[in-house]
Amino acid sequence: MGDTLERNETRSLIASDKVEGTTVYNQQGERLGSVRSFMVDKRSGKADYAVLEFGGLFGLGSDHYPLPWDMLSYDTEKGGYVVNISKEQIENAPHFREADAPEYTDDYGRTVYGYYGISYPAF
Amino acid sequence: MGDTLERNETRSLIASDKVEGTTVYNQQGERLGSVRSFMVDKRSGKADYAVLEFGGLFGLGSDHYPLPWDMLSYDTEKGGYVVNISKEQIENAPHFREADAPEYTDDYGRTVYGYYGISYPAF
Repeated sequence: MGDTLERNETRSLIASDKVEGTTVYNQQGERLGSVRSFMVDKRSGKADYAVLEFGGLFGLGSDHYPLPWDMLSYDTEKGGYVVNISKEQIENAPHFREADAPEYTDDYGRTVYGYYGISYPAF
Repeated sequence: MGDTLERNETRSLIASDKVEGTTVYNQQGERLGSVRSFMVDKRSGKADYAVLEFGGLFGLGSDHYPLPWDMLSYDTEKGGYVVNISKEQIENAPHFREADAPEYTDDYGRTVYGYYGISYPAF
């Protein structure tokens, strides 16, 4: 339930359809892509992954990169999310084509979270 | 972190853009509307509200009803969400036009959650 400070703060919410399409930058200010959608745990209601999309033309043939949700922080100045990932790191990261979306099993989760050096489950 | 059973289960995730547009029924099988979007806590990544949309024509002039997220359960047979809300109850529920979307303050949250008899914060 959080502490008193947290309870007194106004909750800061964002609409799901505003997350989708938001640009993702890295800490060097390079544009990595945009959020295609995000994956929500049906039981807990917790967002576990943001799916970063880039490459392709008008969404055709683009690659999808699941990122641990907690890696994203919103930068109001940039109007987009910032993640601590280099361009080189993303190139070798777990990814898939839209038609080949994975089942988000625990094994897959450990692969993705492990790639970014985050323990799974981290939530 | 959950107990052993929970950790051993495969996580069951759903894509944000599959939640959007999904039909919402009540327990009498009446169609209440559809999920327009849902509101996510930026800090915790937790979905706090589903926004039910109904009325209007092709999305014009429709009303939006924020529902505590945990009220929704997915019914695979129906292919939609089921909530324990009567048609009469929804008619008097807190709602807004798209252009007049509220700030989701704690006061507003207590109003919405309170209307449905759910303690706030319930998460």
